[in-house]
Amino acid sequence: MLMNKAITELEKALTPQNVLHEIEERYAYSQDASDTPEIHSLPDVVVFAETIEQVQEIVRIANKYHTPIICRGAGTNTVGACIAEHGGIVLNFSKMNKILEINRENMTARVQPGVIVGELQNQVERMGLYYPPDPSNLAVSTIGGSIAQNSAGARTFKYGATKDYVLDMLVVTASGELLRTGSNTIKNATGYNLGSLFIGSEGTLGIVVEATLKLIPKPQCSKVIMAYFDNLEDATSAVTSVIEQQIAPATLDFMDKNAIQTVEKFNPIGLLTNKEAALIIEIDGFKSSIEEQKDIIINTLKRCNSSAIQFSATEREAEQIWQARRSSMGACAKLKPNVTTDDVIVPRENLPKLVKGIQEICDNRNLTVCMVGHVGDGSVHPQIPLDFNNKKEYENYKLAKAEIYELTIRLGGTISGEHGIGREKREHISKVVSSNALNYMREIKKVFDPNNILNPFKIF
Amino acid sequence: MLMNKAITELEKALTPQNVLHEIEERYAYSQDASDTPEIHSLPDVVVFAETIEQVQEIVRIANKYHTPIICRGAGTNTVGACIAEHGGIVLNFSKMNKILEINRENMTARVQPGVIVGELQNQVERMGLYYPPDPSNLAVSTIGGSIAQNSAGARTFKYGATKDYVLDMLVVTASGELLRTGSNTIKNATGYNLGSLFIGSEGTLGIVVEATLKLIPKPQCSKVIMAYFDNLEDATSAVTSVIEQQIAPATLDFMDKNAIQTVEKFNPIGLLTNKEAALIIEIDGFKSSIEEQKDIIINTLKRCNSSAIQFSATEREAEQIWQARRSSMGACAKLKPNVTTDDVIVPRENLPKLVKGIQEICDNRNLTVCMVGHVGDGSVHPQIPLDFNNKKEYENYKLAKAEIYELTIRLGGTISGEHGIGREKREHISKVVSSNALNYMREIKKVFDPNNILNPFKIF
Repeated sequence: MLMNKAITELEKALTPQNVLHEIEERYAYSQDASDTPEIHSLPDVVVFAETIEQVQEIVRIANKYHTPIICRGAGTNTVGACIAEHGGIVLNFSKMNKILEINRENMTARVQPGVIVGELQNQVERMGLYYPPDPSNLAVSTIGGSIAQNSAGARTFKYGATKDYVLDMLVVTASGELLRTGSNTIKNATGYNLGSLFIGSEGTLGIVVEATLKLIPKPQCSKVIMAYFDNLEDATSAVTSVIEQQIAPATLDFMDKNAIQTVEKFNPIGLLTNKEAALIIEIDGFKSSIEEQKDIIINTLKRCNSSAIQFSATEREAEQIWQARRSSMGACAKLKPNVTTDDVIVPRENLPKLVKGIQEICDNRNLTVCMVGHVGDGSVHPQIPLDFNNKKEYENYKLAKAEIYELTIRLGGTISGEHGIGREKREHISKVVSSNALNYMREIKKVFDPNNILNPFKIF
Repeated sequence: MLMNKAITELEKALTPQNVLHEIEERYAYSQDASDTPEIHSLPDVVVFAETIEQVQEIVRIANKYHTPIICRGAGTNTVGACIAEHGGIVLNFSKMNKILEINRENMTARVQPGVIVGELQNQVERMGLYYPPDPSNLAVSTIGGSIAQNSAGARTFKYGATKDYVLDMLVVTASGELLRTGSNTIKNATGYNLGSLFIGSEGTLGIVVEATLKLIPKPQCSKVIMAYFDNLEDATSAVTSVIEQQIAPATLDFMDKNAIQTVEKFNPIGLLTNKEAALIIEIDGFKSSIEEQKDIIINTLKRCNSSAIQFSATEREAEQIWQARRSSMGACAKLKPNVTTDDVIVPRENLPKLVKGIQEICDNRNLTVCMVGHVGDGSVHPQIPLDFNNKKEYENYKLAKAEIYELTIRLGGTISGEHGIGREKREHISKVVSSNALNYMREIKKVFDPNNILNPFKIF
């Protein structure tokens, strides 16, 4: 338990209303979207920073009292990366949520870490610009969290992940210094790429307090094709067939039957619930190319035995489909008291085996699984609704999870494509990262955080 | 001077024909494309590795005799990154030049470091795939060198640099261990991004012996627009105007009058030598969109006072234009006994000031400058033909170089966008990278190379 002295110092540095230390206040920050029973951990105190200097002051206090700092955006993390496993200070960035600058000429945005991804997208799109990374929770999740986890999303297939859009950052280090990681230019070849170390490091190496993001021109036009299939194999094989047409759709997403039915049950928009699987293919680009792309893709889908193909006539229809797809975890959560999501990825050629194998594993363990995924990348998110209080079911879930990882690894893949490792997957990381790589990571951790105060013991 | 004992051990490990130690043999490896008088340094021995195990053996011998290892691809580096400043072993990768696999379904290529960039491009394009990074020297430069320097090129504007295409690497560490940095998947969120540390680290952190590269579908069609201008400002302003049309051309490249005239002089293809500047704009994508893109861009260029616009009717014409543009450094080298190239980059909004300022600096110092650049990125390469033996001229060059850096920094830019720091820019790096960032880089160097045997004292 953090000493009262530390809390008094924090209140002095941040004002009392930015320091929460009552048990019920702290309880609200004891979990994140991963939500498994092991995850719950009470922080000693939750603080809101409003300035970079305040963040530096918090680090000074944390060092003085040898207490962890766990940064938190919207808490949508699904691997327990932002829980206070060893107590300490949860540093909430919801009050550092300003878009500081959108520069149309340079095509850059300078933002504070608490900026909501979806809000940034809306703002820049109004100016004809585009920030592609689109994690499913973009309506609430933050840029700081996206950087911490290197968030990706459906559009990663064509446009890349968060790491591809961060040009520069200001980071408060574990010693409280302010560190600039890059430059305000599109390219930079001046020494080691420190920025890319922080991106995806889950708050264990430094505290990102400002980021300069690269924007691109907004595609003139986009349309969504929804293709249904009567069996899983046809759907996953179609992914490769589409790509072989030398087309890079903006997205190549997937929902299995359980996902379709669950989403339609709680958010009816007319999805075909009798189908085994669906692909959601967004094409974008110049208006003049949309018909050509559409024709090529629809012909390919038909050849791959798609049994029903829908095409979004309006932007509203397209947005409805995406809202449905993005709501899948929320919908799954309504099936049972709890829901878990996972994030495995394989080389695309092994996607059919992965999807089929996950289905079999869950069947064998008497678990329902709703599969969605960014299958263009080879990425699958098995979402498993269950009751943590049902001991047998929870035990089965944990066994299935390990089996899914084994299968993924056998298929040449890895256990996290975009969600990270956090606490949830820590015990599994050595299955995919070799011991010498893990040792180098530990050494890097020591370089940046010698006292182990930044989100300690996460990842490895 | 490396002891004879070490050379004997190297000959035993690699066979004698893969170990060059005669003075005239070593002399051929005493410089790279940077070529300034200070750069020349004789290695003690030049070795050719043919297998990963041989690389590990070389590292073992280097450790035993405390001698540096300097990796070398084609030696096209322009900052002295691959010269043996402190003697030691030059490790030449020209015999590890195999494309090990091109996987059409996964859209990946697994290659050895000595593979020539242009050859890889040709091979994958025949399969309908695309490896975008296109450094100007791609006809000879290697993937290993591209990774060491994070090479970019004209297409970076739309497609990104080398770092955006490396999924996984095998690296021989300074201790001789084999380290895998990523996974054979499009995304990977399992711990720190070690791969991105090695990319751009100029051979100072590890020896890349194999890389898995991401490929994308080859654009269906591409065309080149060449737009001439009667003054520099109009040309550089047009860059932003084109982008503001929500178009991301594949390239937005630039040549000033001196570059146009010099290229045309030695490689006549009909460039308009009476113009002050030209933009080379490549548009690509679906056939159906080419006319639309062309119309929008040409209208914009006319509005920006372009005084002549040419459009490549055939692929051959487009390739001719690119060959001309890429030959600019070679052409400059024919003007005087020597030529230097540089690589400064600013936020795009400051590009007109940068180009004009470089011109003025060189005029004041009585230097000819041919400017080319990937101006879509804000990137400019001033190429200065001169005679190193003319002491006054060389002195002027060094003064101009420092002034160009000062100007770049004043305009919010940095001193290397894609060529790296090496030895040439080492004394300037602290102008753009803060001392705490440099300290972290030094600590990272110690983690990976505690005995300082990998390309020692480069970058910082």
